[in-house]
Amino acid sequence: MLRRTVRVHAQVSPDAGTAPQFTEDRIAAALADLGGAVQLSHGGTAEAFEAALTEAEVLFLTGQAPLHDLSRRAPKLRWISCTSAGVEGLLKLDLPRQVVLTNASGTHEPKAAEFTLTAVLMLNNQLPQLMTAQRAHRWAPRPASVVAGKTALILGMGALGGAAATALKAQGMRVVGNSRSGRPHPSVDVMTAGDGFRTHLPAADFLVIALPLTPETHGLIGRAELDLLPRHAGVVNIGRGEQLDAVALAAKLREGSLAGAVLDALPQEPLPEDSPLWDTPNLVVTAHCGLYDPVAYGPRCLDLFRANLRRFLAGEALHQVVERGRGY
Amino acid sequence: MLRRTVRVHAQVSPDAGTAPQFTEDRIAAALADLGGAVQLSHGGTAEAFEAALTEAEVLFLTGQAPLHDLSRRAPKLRWISCTSAGVEGLLKLDLPRQVVLTNASGTHEPKAAEFTLTAVLMLNNQLPQLMTAQRAHRWAPRPASVVAGKTALILGMGALGGAAATALKAQGMRVVGNSRSGRPHPSVDVMTAGDGFRTHLPAADFLVIALPLTPETHGLIGRAELDLLPRHAGVVNIGRGEQLDAVALAAKLREGSLAGAVLDALPQEPLPEDSPLWDTPNLVVTAHCGLYDPVAYGPRCLDLFRANLRRFLAGEALHQVVERGRGY
Repeated sequence: MLRRTVRVHAQVSPDAGTAPQFTEDRIAAALADLGGAVQLSHGGTAEAFEAALTEAEVLFLTGQAPLHDLSRRAPKLRWISCTSAGVEGLLKLDLPRQVVLTNASGTHEPKAAEFTLTAVLMLNNQLPQLMTAQRAHRWAPRPASVVAGKTALILGMGALGGAAATALKAQGMRVVGNSRSGRPHPSVDVMTAGDGFRTHLPAADFLVIALPLTPETHGLIGRAELDLLPRHAGVVNIGRGEQLDAVALAAKLREGSLAGAVLDALPQEPLPEDSPLWDTPNLVVTAHCGLYDPVAYGPRCLDLFRANLRRFLAGEALHQVVERGRGY
Repeated sequence: MLRRTVRVHAQVSPDAGTAPQFTEDRIAAALADLGGAVQLSHGGTAEAFEAALTEAEVLFLTGQAPLHDLSRRAPKLRWISCTSAGVEGLLKLDLPRQVVLTNASGTHEPKAAEFTLTAVLMLNNQLPQLMTAQRAHRWAPRPASVVAGKTALILGMGALGGAAATALKAQGMRVVGNSRSGRPHPSVDVMTAGDGFRTHLPAADFLVIALPLTPETHGLIGRAELDLLPRHAGVVNIGRGEQLDAVALAAKLREGSLAGAVLDALPQEPLPEDSPLWDTPNLVVTAHCGLYDPVAYGPRCLDLFRANLRRFLAGEALHQVVERGRGY
């Protein structure tokens, strides 16, 4: 079944927060049942990377690596398996056409579900307002009706948005979904396609951004879109900071024309110490850790990689392939 | 079926946060289908109360009222229906033996479920820590594994604790329950009785207090009990402030031997502006509004009252009766 030996290089940047999940031992253990079919190298430095590129057919990539000019530096490379869901940075590099790019789509699903549920429940239960009052030592009850029956509008119905939809639907919420295709989803009451989400903004109690970053989604939610939301609405961003105009959002929170926001994705990461976002009333910043499960993420990524590597060896089509034209 | 006319007085203190839900119109509408069987009076002042007491058989009570010496002042009174779940204040008044006391047990269930879920998810997802970092303008990711598989220990398995158990179980959590009787509950994996909860404290990732306030539960969770929890544990109080030693809790949060807490019930309410609890790291204060649903609470209370009033008129036993010996 397995065709031959393949040279796999795992490049794990020591700067990546996820690096401890991808040690050489862990990767070797995950690939053990592929037997002698895999020749594995593992490194974190630029030197290790350069040395491995000459022969590597497969690159398992965690964090940053110098990926310019791969046609010349990595003539045998056919596949880059990336351990993040968003790959907009890699796509900017103009990878050689013969290199397939796969991402970690699906590995974040359980945390995407739980984190979005957490954020929506916090917003519904006025936690941002209560914590703003707490900072001021003010006892200011903010009773809230249950989230059941309220509407969440989810932009992006990929693995993350779909998992979020299921978690919110289980609380009895009405879920409006939006994707490029508008393809139905079992946890979504109303599906919209493309720009169709705009007409649903005035009826959204919560807006959840779960989009990949592409030219189309860059700057998608600005002042005009935020102005269509009701005053009591809350905003959650588990996508990318560039998709939401945080300055416009902060202005609306300050003027009270929007109730609250939980931002896991920020326009600049790390957010600089002097950013006015830190002190914006009813804005919660969660430092882009909301979707990362430090226990399950590594094993889940390696399970997907092993399954894909088996397909690669068998000459079958890979899963989680990024379509470069659309950017995810 | 209905035996006769009964004089019902609704005393609704204008100070009560719930007062807008119990206007004369709303109560009259809720009781309309009992037809001529009910003679309703409604008031908020001490004078209105005094005037009504002489003839009232049934008192529907929201908020505070002068309830001393009822044997003399309200000779015909047989039933007080109170719109709160906790009635420890009323029980201190030594009500006449012929007066049955009912509470609003059950009306808070949906919010108890949602608020406890919110608090546990916030604690699991390190929101207190992230918000403590936010106050300091620090980008400090705190990744967390999913809540599924973790253990919640719930003290008090009445309507509130039971609803909380069901909400947490639905997230895949392991739920340990504790009650006086230790009676099994469908959403609880392990039930403990009386002091039996202590042996489960070291294995609890989250401690949820959902107890009525009685002499037995007063001061139940002090430094010794908190010291049995693991360092990473979080504490949620939806019961009464007197059940938890907040000074000991704050000391543990400051020294880092406990991860976080969400307190809806505080030792003093409103919490004074100079309380050190406001600024305790990783402590969230929610101003005793967590369990109150401003939309559903009033109608739900009035539904229960109507059903009970029908029983009263038919000479049947009332529901939600407070057992004075045990205090809830």
